[in-house]
Amino acid sequence: MHILLTRPLQALGVLALLLALGGSTQVVRSRGPRPAQGPIFPKGQRGPAANFTGTVWVTSLVADDSTFQCVTGNVVFEPGARSNWHRHPSGQILLVTDGSGYYQEKGQPKRILHKGDVIKALPGVEHWHGATPKQALTHVAIVPNTEKGVAVWLQPVTDQEYYSLK
Amino acid sequence: MHILLTRPLQALGVLALLLALGGSTQVVRSRGPRPAQGPIFPKGQRGPAANFTGTVWVTSLVADDSTFQCVTGNVVFEPGARSNWHRHPSGQILLVTDGSGYYQEKGQPKRILHKGDVIKALPGVEHWHGATPKQALTHVAIVPNTEKGVAVWLQPVTDQEYYSLK
Repeated sequence: MHILLTRPLQALGVLALLLALGGSTQVVRSRGPRPAQGPIFPKGQRGPAANFTGTVWVTSLVADDSTFQCVTGNVVFEPGARSNWHRHPSGQILLVTDGSGYYQEKGQPKRILHKGDVIKALPGVEHWHGATPKQALTHVAIVPNTEKGVAVWLQPVTDQEYYSLK
Repeated sequence: MHILLTRPLQALGVLALLLALGGSTQVVRSRGPRPAQGPIFPKGQRGPAANFTGTVWVTSLVADDSTFQCVTGNVVFEPGARSNWHRHPSGQILLVTDGSGYYQEKGQPKRILHKGDVIKALPGVEHWHGATPKQALTHVAIVPNTEKGVAVWLQPVTDQEYYSLK
């Protein structure tokens, strides 16, 4: 509004750009029809080795911004792959969309994840997630209220931790 | 913490309950393995006729709470079904997981939605979404920052609006 009041010509330019973009919607990703039976989202980029063990693919669906403050991404863990231990200052929601995997909080037994499961990791709770040794895991990950921070990355999940029956 | 300081016996009870529940994770939904090719989430309940035209199924994945302030749900629109016009004070993220449908903002042409599309409806922008006349649409809907409100429901989308080429 500051621009609208003080710089009318620039404001007209911004308005024209908005109209050219088709209004205020932000279509973050639109690629036309995808095969009915294939993955919902593309694999994206390799997750950084500093934060993951094994092969992990990460696709950003909604980047961090000051309007939504809600980072959303798709993550594919190939069999045996997992995140490092980490925590989210404002918590994290996981929606399991395919495969099976593990979710574990510090000091707690591993939980087995299946397609359709929903996990809420509470703010600040140290945890990891990943595939089972023989099956891939795909989940959507949502971090709300990112004004508090997105993630604090910690040490890798050791093979002993990963293969433990607990 | 107030309880811990003043009511130790009750606090022990709460602690025991938390331990029995397996710690601080909130597994909102876990139902064991689901068929690899079927829908990710169950259909849930019929969406209220006051807010929708046609047959719509809504499953709550994450209810509103003061920790996440991020309502998440799965919505299935059967062919021809659509939401009323509505707006979200803090905006909405749609993740299209199956089928095809429409998304339209007031005064803008309809956009066709496909599996894998991501839409960000900006705060306060009047819009509707739904299936195409011949194909169902399934999407995850995320409303962040619900302290500002979740949704303001408006008038139905008329057949004229729905079947318009614009």
